[in-house]
Amino acid sequence: MRPDIVFIGAGGAGLTAAFIIARKRPETRITLFSRDPVVAYSQCGMPFVLDNKIESFDRLILYTPEVFKDLGLDVRTGVAVTGVDLDARAVTLEGGETVEYGKLVFSTGSIPFIPSVPGVGLRGVHRLLTLEDGRSLARAVEGAKSAVIIGGGPIGLETAPAFLDRGIEVTIVERMPHLMPSALDPDMAVFLEDYLKEMGATIITGKGVESINGAGKVESVTVGGETIKADLVLMAAGVRPNVELAKKAGIDIGPAGGIDVDERFRVKKNGRALDDVYAAGDCIEEVNAITGRKVVCAIGTVANRQARFLAEQLMGNDVPYGPVLCPAIAVVGDLHVGSVGLTTMACEAAGIKPVSFKARSNTRARYYPGGSQLNIKLIADGERIVGAQLMGKEGVHGRVNQLTLAIHKKMTPSELADVETCYAPPVSPMIDPITYAAEMLALRCKKGKR
Amino acid sequence: MRPDIVFIGAGGAGLTAAFIIARKRPETRITLFSRDPVVAYSQCGMPFVLDNKIESFDRLILYTPEVFKDLGLDVRTGVAVTGVDLDARAVTLEGGETVEYGKLVFSTGSIPFIPSVPGVGLRGVHRLLTLEDGRSLARAVEGAKSAVIIGGGPIGLETAPAFLDRGIEVTIVERMPHLMPSALDPDMAVFLEDYLKEMGATIITGKGVESINGAGKVESVTVGGETIKADLVLMAAGVRPNVELAKKAGIDIGPAGGIDVDERFRVKKNGRALDDVYAAGDCIEEVNAITGRKVVCAIGTVANRQARFLAEQLMGNDVPYGPVLCPAIAVVGDLHVGSVGLTTMACEAAGIKPVSFKARSNTRARYYPGGSQLNIKLIADGERIVGAQLMGKEGVHGRVNQLTLAIHKKMTPSELADVETCYAPPVSPMIDPITYAAEMLALRCKKGKR
Repeated sequence: MRPDIVFIGAGGAGLTAAFIIARKRPETRITLFSRDPVVAYSQCGMPFVLDNKIESFDRLILYTPEVFKDLGLDVRTGVAVTGVDLDARAVTLEGGETVEYGKLVFSTGSIPFIPSVPGVGLRGVHRLLTLEDGRSLARAVEGAKSAVIIGGGPIGLETAPAFLDRGIEVTIVERMPHLMPSALDPDMAVFLEDYLKEMGATIITGKGVESINGAGKVESVTVGGETIKADLVLMAAGVRPNVELAKKAGIDIGPAGGIDVDERFRVKKNGRALDDVYAAGDCIEEVNAITGRKVVCAIGTVANRQARFLAEQLMGNDVPYGPVLCPAIAVVGDLHVGSVGLTTMACEAAGIKPVSFKARSNTRARYYPGGSQLNIKLIADGERIVGAQLMGKEGVHGRVNQLTLAIHKKMTPSELADVETCYAPPVSPMIDPITYAAEMLALRCKKGKR
Repeated sequence: MRPDIVFIGAGGAGLTAAFIIARKRPETRITLFSRDPVVAYSQCGMPFVLDNKIESFDRLILYTPEVFKDLGLDVRTGVAVTGVDLDARAVTLEGGETVEYGKLVFSTGSIPFIPSVPGVGLRGVHRLLTLEDGRSLARAVEGAKSAVIIGGGPIGLETAPAFLDRGIEVTIVERMPHLMPSALDPDMAVFLEDYLKEMGATIITGKGVESINGAGKVESVTVGGETIKADLVLMAAGVRPNVELAKKAGIDIGPAGGIDVDERFRVKKNGRALDDVYAAGDCIEEVNAITGRKVVCAIGTVANRQARFLAEQLMGNDVPYGPVLCPAIAVVGDLHVGSVGLTTMACEAAGIKPVSFKARSNTRARYYPGGSQLNIKLIADGERIVGAQLMGKEGVHGRVNQLTLAIHKKMTPSELADVETCYAPPVSPMIDPITYAAEMLALRCKKGKR
């Protein structure tokens, strides 16, 4: 029988939405097609399996096929969708079979960006997208003596300690002038760079990879004229929305490179939203809540949140999905790196004149042992808080969420500084670092106006 | 020369305000009188010195007399003020000396509440207010085999592990039906009670102490007819505003038992605010932001925050101080107990019909080892969030501050559920427990309205 809803892709967005609908409307016939032979695993967990924090890749599998069956979900793994016929309301599978749909969802996710340099096809060049990628990298790590990580984003950096802890010589290459350029300003990235250097990593920023070299298997990487030995290479130069199939079907792709959807997740064709055809997850672009510009925000929490809104739409509840702030946290070794909203650089790119304040504090009362240094940068547009960056070995996660709330509520630094906070010597200083940073930022904003 | 400002009491409120003014307006002549021979130490840190988490009581001293001298502060320790003459604008010291003032601040703090039962004066009955109290208790702990803690509030409970870790038999007696009754509802207090029982403590709730028994030195405590052996007793039955001096001077005491001040911290006489006479810290009462009722909120963060507002007033900047939510966190062993706003019980007492939801979650992704169970209770008045209680071994502090912000901004559960959150497997589940609890609470509120 024709499924009511067909999902192309069963990652964070597709599978989560399908789960919600299956639970709340069990009569809905749902089919999901996944190119990946395994679904329902945590991509974000893979760096920590490689670092032996989690005992096996199997632990990352969140739901077994039995769960899908119990929910009445038809999950077809290892099956690629090769075409979509919007007029015939059908998808074509590898092999030629066609499947009609009532409603269609593009939840095709993202694909790692592979720079077009010679040698990317050599053996020993890894990526970290699927569980199989993870297992393959885990095997390659055994016996490796040197590794080059191409890309200074969260996935590459979270994986670096797995290499370093095994005594592998690690070089991280980031094309932009500093690590995590989309989350951090240079004056904050420096703390992360220092931390990784202390762990033994070599960091090369502001230079792109020229070639990956070797005979069959990777032997070295050339960066800025210099050749670096490498038994393995991890391609972690970010991801791009996987829009190939949507593009082929004539669906609009937005300025940020993702599928252009409206606030009901409906895809568009020639600027007009289509009924019954949706897209969600890493493959779409969305609206930044501060600048109003289109952005791609390919992180698990965003996909999961979209799925919850999408599920409502698919069940006929019109709960519009709004602009985003994309709060994020990465855990690099034991350093927590958090961010939300705009960086100073992103402000400038959007024509906003940023005012910022950087504070350094302890995470505990100064007499209480075992705490960590906490670095905080708060950014305002002169009036309201628009961004924050935090780094420390504890106390980052909750503060990122707190600041997300403050930015969401369009708070001024001075209003945030006035909000009460809780305190106990083992978990915070008496005056919270956010209170202090907000107070100082308020003074700077005031000064700037004079 | 006559001081511009005289502070009676040099605790969290008085000393902090004096510090701020001394830094910003160094020409101000400030005198502080402290009955305590030592000032500028952290009371909140004492339980953790007793538990050997902090190496000595000296570590709790935050500023030495040299710092006061450098700041030009005249801090007179070990000096009791015995009277205030508001007409003559002068205070009288023990011994008879009088000191005139330009402005006067009552920052007299709080005093432990000592229930009037026979035997409270016996040797071996301790309290934990001053550093000297702490040192005396530390000496008593050596060699003690049994201890009774009278009062199930934060200070007593934070101290209990120090006894238990030494193998001392501990009985905690709380007059109310459950522990931490002002912060927790019974259905949350039970987790704390279970935790303490697992550590080996005996907990008696709903019964008051009838007598403390012994010949010269405490030997036992009688509770509900039962006699419990005790080598030492810790009186931790809460604190009361220290208003004796203010009362003697004819200053108004409010319905909650604290000095009645306006939003400029001016004390009142017969309902009229006095110029140049202020009070702040544990000795005053303030306004609960949700109920509008007068409350006493004797915690360090509140005193510190008041001090920052009071300092502005004393420097001539009219920044009014508003109602409070009193977020708080206690650390009992390795369990963090957080709360903000109203409990269900406090709602009922204020005529608010509470709607609540209780969630249990992990603090990390479910496959990531080493996390803790996190118990959360969110409370709404049917419309907006008005209170929260959290308990876990990590992830409590930041969430209390986040929820404080949500309550401060009068958010509904559904709005809070929609706010983005950050995620990484080692520090949080994909869907934050707050998001989930808020979502479920929103449903309950909706249901309640139908």
